[in-house]
Amino acid sequence: MNPRDTLREVGEFGLISRIARIVGRPGERVSLGIGDDCAVVQGSAGQLLITTDMMVEGIHFRLDWYEGSQLGHKALAASLSDVAAMGGVPRYALISIALREALPVSLIEEIYRGMVALSKHFQVELVGGDTVRSPDVVVLDVVVVGEAPRHPRQRSQAREGHLLMVTGSLGGSAAGLQLLEQGTSPHDHRWTELIKRHLQPWPRVREGRELASLSGVGAMIDISDGLVRECHHLAAASEVAVEIWADHLPLHPAAAELARQWNADPLRWALFGGEEYELLVTGTPSFARQAERLLARHNVPITTIGRVLRGSGVRVRKEDGSIEPIPPVGWEHFR
Amino acid sequence: MNPRDTLREVGEFGLISRIARIVGRPGERVSLGIGDDCAVVQGSAGQLLITTDMMVEGIHFRLDWYEGSQLGHKALAASLSDVAAMGGVPRYALISIALREALPVSLIEEIYRGMVALSKHFQVELVGGDTVRSPDVVVLDVVVVGEAPRHPRQRSQAREGHLLMVTGSLGGSAAGLQLLEQGTSPHDHRWTELIKRHLQPWPRVREGRELASLSGVGAMIDISDGLVRECHHLAAASEVAVEIWADHLPLHPAAAELARQWNADPLRWALFGGEEYELLVTGTPSFARQAERLLARHNVPITTIGRVLRGSGVRVRKEDGSIEPIPPVGWEHFR
Repeated sequence: MNPRDTLREVGEFGLISRIARIVGRPGERVSLGIGDDCAVVQGSAGQLLITTDMMVEGIHFRLDWYEGSQLGHKALAASLSDVAAMGGVPRYALISIALREALPVSLIEEIYRGMVALSKHFQVELVGGDTVRSPDVVVLDVVVVGEAPRHPRQRSQAREGHLLMVTGSLGGSAAGLQLLEQGTSPHDHRWTELIKRHLQPWPRVREGRELASLSGVGAMIDISDGLVRECHHLAAASEVAVEIWADHLPLHPAAAELARQWNADPLRWALFGGEEYELLVTGTPSFARQAERLLARHNVPITTIGRVLRGSGVRVRKEDGSIEPIPPVGWEHFR
Repeated sequence: MNPRDTLREVGEFGLISRIARIVGRPGERVSLGIGDDCAVVQGSAGQLLITTDMMVEGIHFRLDWYEGSQLGHKALAASLSDVAAMGGVPRYALISIALREALPVSLIEEIYRGMVALSKHFQVELVGGDTVRSPDVVVLDVVVVGEAPRHPRQRSQAREGHLLMVTGSLGGSAAGLQLLEQGTSPHDHRWTELIKRHLQPWPRVREGRELASLSGVGAMIDISDGLVRECHHLAAASEVAVEIWADHLPLHPAAAELARQWNADPLRWALFGGEEYELLVTGTPSFARQAERLLARHNVPITTIGRVLRGSGVRVRKEDGSIEPIPPVGWEHFR
């Protein structure tokens, strides 16, 4: 193969056979993988989770920022994160992808390699999809089918008296995005960690499953649209108010450092930055203690960042103790 | 609501709540439908079918040809047809859609209405999806999850001695497409039937399930890429040769009439036209007799159009008895 071959040269069926080689032999739960009308997979006697996430070039990503494998990783991570947020176990993935004919096949293969690497990590089977031409923008849409836990975690399950907790750290992805938007090279070694946090976020699949199994757990949701927006989703669906404690937010250390250098406010990244794929979860105080112990075993932090109250909407308690309501808007509207 | 509101005005969440109203209350197999991270649905103790089909504006459709409801119908029909081709029962659908902000919301609602109407006909539950912005082209990707029959029909199951059969008629969709491409109005009453055959094809869901249940059934596939191409898929996957009998092809009557008026060759539409969503099936001679009897009860024709032979590739037996091999190409290459 010529590494500069484009999709126009190999054609759809040439591409599909290359993809099938990258994906490899399916496991025993898969009766029929890539290449027929449908994938045929083992069902589940319990409940299934189904989710799909679409990424569009120019809206969700720029091709010149991403290595192919990072793009494939991120497209799959978005759907895995949705399954994680229900506390489920992802099982099968399908990827639909619309491609310009002038794209090098090697880039497309890299997209699939990134997806396969992440799917193997979580023992998810890549069982099919669709490859089509696009006149213009590249579009990826990833479906994940998984097994539901006995009680799937929903955004409507936050209750008055619950604490609000978040896994990992916040603001790293938004800081990485801002670096890229200001022209920083994706390979700039000073900020590798932040940029990678944006380009290749890790879905909290194991953590979601374990948190969902604890007693006293309430609502769970992944932070793809930013902390404030997700809190609004919880508040509206659960008919409660959510209070975020600004001085408790677990800022990503490198984002905090970048904010110092730029004399910027890292709190805005933490509150409004999306594509973080951390889990936001509510639960009783006893749940919060168990959750900390459980995730500490895996060296994953989980931090109490607020509480659930009677009422509606989202408010932030600032460092000086003042409380300010925040509408469900992007950070440009936040004073 | 102002009927000229655009997506920019109502926003993503405004749109989602309108979609949820169009979709209506989910049935009892659906624990959680539109609006959370994942849909939660009843699993199947047997095998599941999963398929996804992507349609891109400018490649697969032009917005000015379609009513919104036709576009929604067709996007869902493509995935339902894949399930039909395995002999399965479609259960759940999710739709990811990338939209320009300047599109009228009423058009988007029509897309969902068309999808909902078709899904209700087949008792398929629309349980979720993703709505995102696109800088340019509209993209629809529809996932369908279904229940597999005991022995899913695959393209690799054609055997020497099988007859080749096709449901319904051929060439109508290609003739309709050519009318549209030549500037005929989608509402031209002379050719309504052909144009509708292209814009709003009907998936053979019931027929696929019934054909798959007959003894002596072999391979089954839906005709989305054109008869010749699909025969090549069967031949390659089954390691057999497929012979098509040109004078047995069930030409769509209006396509035959149009060809007469244009002095064109309707055979090319029947052989190479895609997006027909008829089913191509192989089976023993006894299967063929049963299939005719079975579908006659529903007033759906099924026609024997060829046979499966030892060897490889696809050939056409012409009216004069001569036999010509056909490569897996589009009709412009066929002399």
